[in-house]
Formats: sequence, C-alpha cells, structure tokens
Amino acid sequence: MSNWGAIDGSLASPRGFRASTVAAGLRKAGAGLDLALVFSDSRETTAAGMFTTNRVAAAPVVLCRRNLKASRGRCRAVVINAGNANACTGRAGLEAARAAARAAAKLLRVSPNQVLVASTGVIGVPLKLDLILSQLPVLKETLSIENAAAVTRAIMTTDTFPKSCVLRTTIGGQPVHLAGIAKGAGMIHPRLATMLAFVTTDAGVGARDLKKMLRAAVESSFHRISVDGDTSTNDTVLALASGLSGLRVRCGTRTGGLFLAGLTELCQTLARMIAKDGEGAKKLVTIEVHGARTRTDAERMARTIANSPLVKTAIAGSDPNWGRIICAAGNSGATFDPSKVDIRVNDFVLCRGSLDVGFDEAAAKRELDQKELTIRLDLHEGKASTRFWTCDLTHDYITINASYRT
Amino acid sequence: MSNWGAIDGSLASPRGFRASTVAAGLRKAGAGLDLALVFSDSRETTAAGMFTTNRVAAAPVVLCRRNLKASRGRCRAVVINAGNANACTGRAGLEAARAAARAAAKLLRVSPNQVLVASTGVIGVPLKLDLILSQLPVLKETLSIENAAAVTRAIMTTDTFPKSCVLRTTIGGQPVHLAGIAKGAGMIHPRLATMLAFVTTDAGVGARDLKKMLRAAVESSFHRISVDGDTSTNDTVLALASGLSGLRVRCGTRTGGLFLAGLTELCQTLARMIAKDGEGAKKLVTIEVHGARTRTDAERMARTIANSPLVKTAIAGSDPNWGRIICAAGNSGATFDPSKVDIRVNDFVLCRGSLDVGFDEAAAKRELDQKELTIRLDLHEGKASTRFWTCDLTHDYITINASYRT
Repeated sequence: MSNWGAIDGSLASPRGFRASTVAAGLRKAGAGLDLALVFSDSRETTAAGMFTTNRVAAAPVVLCRRNLKASRGRCRAVVINAGNANACTGRAGLEAARAAARAAAKLLRVSPNQVLVASTGVIGVPLKLDLILSQLPVLKETLSIENAAAVTRAIMTTDTFPKSCVLRTTIGGQPVHLAGIAKGAGMIHPRLATMLAFVTTDAGVGARDLKKMLRAAVESSFHRISVDGDTSTNDTVLALASGLSGLRVRCGTRTGGLFLAGLTELCQTLARMIAKDGEGAKKLVTIEVHGARTRTDAERMARTIANSPLVKTAIAGSDPNWGRIICAAGNSGATFDPSKVDIRVNDFVLCRGSLDVGFDEAAAKRELDQKELTIRLDLHEGKASTRFWTCDLTHDYITINASYRT
Repeated sequence: MSNWGAIDGSLASPRGFRASTVAAGLRKAGAGLDLALVFSDSRETTAAGMFTTNRVAAAPVVLCRRNLKASRGRCRAVVINAGNANACTGRAGLEAARAAARAAAKLLRVSPNQVLVASTGVIGVPLKLDLILSQLPVLKETLSIENAAAVTRAIMTTDTFPKSCVLRTTIGGQPVHLAGIAKGAGMIHPRLATMLAFVTTDAGVGARDLKKMLRAAVESSFHRISVDGDTSTNDTVLALASGLSGLRVRCGTRTGGLFLAGLTELCQTLARMIAKDGEGAKKLVTIEVHGARTRTDAERMARTIANSPLVKTAIAGSDPNWGRIICAAGNSGATFDPSKVDIRVNDFVLCRGSLDVGFDEAAAKRELDQKELTIRLDLHEGKASTRFWTCDLTHDYITINASYRT
C-alpha cells in the first residue's frame, strides 16, 4: 500500500537505465549539449510510444512507429537530438534516422529495430548525420547513471527551465520508480518545433499493457495542454520499462491501477511544466469544466477555451472578461444550456446563470494577477468534468514568434 | 448583359431605402453615433439573414431568427445599435430587443415581426432600452437617402475605417443596385464583440431565394475570414430586397446567376475589409489552397492555416517560415500526401514537393513585407481549391486585447 512520492533523480533512477549526453554541434556552435542516448541494460525491457497526429510526421516519428511494431515493443535505447527536427526532409531524412538507429544498435549489441530516435529543432533542413555517427561511440562509452541528469538539458531548445519528475513508491514490498523528462512549449522558436517526453520505469510491464497505460496517461496529461493550438510534426512520448524492480504490472489489476496512477501523475506534472513554460507565458492557467452532460462535451469546451486567443490575452491583462469565456464555450460545439453557466476565477464568482453578478472588479483583478490560476465553469447539465492546462498570451509570444530568424 | 461596377453610395443607393442615425448615448459619453434605422418603403420588400453559429446567441440574434420566420421573410426595417451587444442579458435582454422592434414597428406602421434588430458592444451588461425608445421617433423623422451614408460609422466600434461597398449593373435593360456595409474585426475590444453586415438591393427576390443566395454568398465571403478564430455571440448578416428596380431575380436562372455574382462580390469585398481591419493587423493575407482532393479538404486546410497563430506571427515578422505552414496543413484533418506540397508567397516558391528549394531569404522577405500578400499551397491531389482571408498577428493584437478595461 502506498502513494507515489516525488524524489530527486533522473531517467536513470529506475533500475536498469543509464544515459549520456554530448555537444555534437547540431545546434549553433557553442550552444551546448544537443545529443543524448538513453539505454536499458535489461533484456526484459518493453517500450511504448505516442506520437503526433499531424499528417506531416517527421522522419524520427515514422521510424519509431516502425521499430516499436517490428520489435513488438522490445526497444531498449533512444537516441535524441536537438537542433534539427528532421521533418520535411524527404527520403534522405528517413534514411538518416534509420542510419543513426542502426549505428547505435551495433554499438549497443541490440537489434536495429530496438533503437528509437527523437528529434527537435529546425524543420526542412537536412540532418547532419555524420555529426551524430561520429559521437555515438562517445555516448556509448559514457553511459552511466550520473550522466543521465544532463539529458533534460540536452533536449531543451528555448525552454526556459528543464522539465523532469521522478516518483517512487513501494508496491507489495517492492520499491518502484517512475522517471520522466520533457521539453517544449508549442513550436518554440521560428522553424523549431516539438514536444518530447521520455519516461523510464523499473516496473515490469508487458509491451501491450505499457502502450495501453501510456495512452491513458497521455490522454489526461499531454493531450490536455495547449500553448498555441498547433500540433508539431515531431511530438513524441516514449516509455521504457526495465522490469528490474521485480514488480510485475498488468492492466486491470490493483497493482496496474497503482502504476497507472503514478504514470498519470508523472505525465501531468510534466505537461503542466510545458504549459507553464509556454512561449512568452507569465501564468499557468487551469481550465476546469464541471457539470457537463458528457465527458466529450466537457473536453471540447475546455479545449476551445484553452485555445481562445481572446481568453488568453484577457488573462494576460488580468481582465475578468467572462463574456469571452462564455463566447468560447458557445463556439466549442458542446451541448449545454447557455442560460445556466456559472464562471469562477479561483473561488471568485464572475457570472451565475450566464448573468453578470456585479462583482468587485479590483478583487477579480487580484485573482487574475496570480501566477497560477483556475478558470472554472459549471454547466449544471450532468456529472462529467475535465481539466485542461494552458497559459496566457502575451507580447512575448509575438516577440518570440514574429522576430525574423537571424 | 453586364458586369457589376463599384459606385459611390450608401445602403440607400438601391431604390426604396432610407436610413438615419443618432447619438443615443449607448456608448461612452461623447463617443458619437451609436443608433441607426434602415427602412424600406416598398411593401414588396423581402429579407433574409445569416447568424452566428455560437450556441450563446445574443438576444437580437434570437429575435431576428424569430421575426424572419414569423413574417415569412417580409421584414422592412432594421434597428442597429453599437455600445452594447445585448448578449448574456437573459430574459430581460430579449424583452428589450422585442420592445425596441415593437416601438419601431408602431412608428413605421408595419407589423412588429417586420422589424429586425442588431447589436454590437459590451457583453453581459443590460441594454439601456429607454435611450433607444426615446430616440426612435427622431430616427423615424430623419429617415432619408442622404442620412444613410452615416450608418456605416454608427455601427463602428474600434474599427479603424468604415466598411462599405455599392455595386451597380444593368440586367435586361434594368439598372440594379446592391449595397452593403459591415463592421468588425473579430471581437474588437475587451468585452466588445461582433461582425455585423447589412445588404440592401432594389432587385426583386423572393424571400426563400434571397435566403438561398445570401447563404451561398456568405459561404464564400464572411465564412472565409478569420482574425482570431472566435465566432462572436452576435454575428449577423442581413439582406433586404425592395424590388423597386423592376428586375425580378430567381435562383437557377441566368438573371439569378448574375445577381448572385454581384451579391458574392459585394460580400467578399466587405469580408476582405474586415480581415484587413483585424485587431492590430498590418497585412491582409489571402490563403489559397489548390489541387485538393475535395473542396472540404481545401477549406479545412485553408481555415487551419488562416487560424494558426504561428503562421500569422511569422507573417507579421516577414519570416518565410514554410515549416509552420506545412505543419498547420498537416493539422487540418485534410487528406493529402505530405511529400507533394508546393508553397508560394505571391509567385515566390518557398518549398516544392515539401522540400526546401534553397530560396533567397532576402527576396522571400521582400514578398512578405507587402501589405497584401497571398500564401498559396498546391497539393497535386485533385482539382478542388479555395480561398480564405486573414491578417497577421502583431503586438497590437495583444495590446488591444490584454489591456485592462478602464
């Protein structure tokens, strides 16, 4: 019996994992670490992935899908680079991704389809494969538990802080670990793209169950954040389970439920960090919809509000502009009675029954001035509810995205 | 035989129409004209309307729908106010709209259901009905052809220029007129909402045919602009046809085709003006998608690109960032081969077959520096194409929308 607790650590906190990083020169000269290798020593390792729904999928996404399928979820290594997304690079791009995986597999003595790759950076520019190939032996030699801590930084682009979370619990007397890192905040920089997240665990989970649980955890975490509504060509979430904790986890069991709860908490923590680090963001905003007729209605509404530039600029200006919130709700396609909506910021009521309550503007502004705030809608239609995370839309978003590349 | 040509004029250029305006005090004191009346003297007048798809429809939208139905499209007058949207105002709001229509009907000696109303302004604040009722007699007394010119200004909120278009042609020897005015640029100001457009013509068009043709014209004009992706609670397009030109128009006839061409041209001209006057916009951007498999695919893609904040900030910065354009295309849900896309800005090629063509950056930037520019995608999948209008996303958008109401 236990709850998951946060601890200091890295992707190598779960038993069986080692990692390494290097500055390969894929970014501009002198811009630091840009290539990482994550490896599991356990032959029992299983892997699962979730990828962008964008029809224009980058080469590493295409290769990950293939290798997870070909190895039946038995992947043991991930090669990650920043500086180049290897997207819109045609056949040559896919061949480059495959060559990197092949070279790593040879060094690590695993099958080529047991190596996954992930990239983030410029779109439409050929990947400098030679730089990666020449550094892979170094990465292999320096694999260690200690070196795993730097992976979080190696995958950052213009992220303003590294994003990681490590959880630990004891289930049936066994200590079990879950670790995750992430990068991204929409499409962070002119021509740069991507949200990436990597999860390791020493729980033993069958490949099929790992996929199922990863999907469920992603559904209520990374799928519920929005910075600017754009889904990148490279979005990738990968999970590797070494099994070395001794704990076996299966879907539908009590142990499976405990594991899924931890996995979900881990992914939500990382997802919130991404929303908080949204381009130009000053505030982390939670959108809650309660009392919806169906979960789909709740999700549509929360998503539409989280994506509305008018709502997000109002929050940036601490303007208690509930008219924009209800307007976005009305555009969402969700079924609800437009005369029954209550809207709160934190616990402060802005409107009740879709009518102005004559609130104190200064007090409302104070609520909106907070760095982390919640917009809550009560529809009084049913029992479904949901939660989304987004950020405010500020001048800095325009500055970051409208400045010409130089 | 003829083409439609633009002439100077107003909503009263078509025969049978008169209008008037007044400063009723619905805006802040001293903010000028804010109430208008448009009236057709012809008993033959037909009317049609298109309204917001937002589930939260404002009171005037609800009343317009009812009156168009109840009168079987025989409405003859429109009362328009700025300063207050009469949205999220509950039963009292609907009763206020109805009272305004009833009072105007009595003065004009028509049935209450022959009067339409339209509002734009603050959401969630009770409408000052007494100010409207006290000015209606003045509006009735001052109805004239000359006074119609000021209606365009009376409905402006933070629009930076008045939007009107008058077309004239000769069909079968009969001079025929089409006139239109519009206001709006998304949800223009904190708590202000709405796109409004009003069309008059002296063609004689049955109410059902007028609705059909208005729908077709709106589909390829107002439905193809995007400033920030938000659909207001008050969006309204109304058309009134007096029949006094002597020309009878029917759907499916050659004359009907000529009339629809003019109506579409009129609506597109007004729609482009709205996109050009988008909040903070410096550039009018036409998005063209060619060679799509179906029209639905083309429209989805054009709409998604026109709504992408990343594409729109890149255009603001004159950044030839085709990666963002193809990424938005991939997110649209349209079916296409991601390896076959060509993208141009004006006639300048940025990518071919989804691969970088190694273009001259300075030359590309010059194309993007233009005040009116076209982004064109060729998918090489089929023969369907479409065109959308949008604007760039600038610092001024944030300034306009994030500044606290004072």
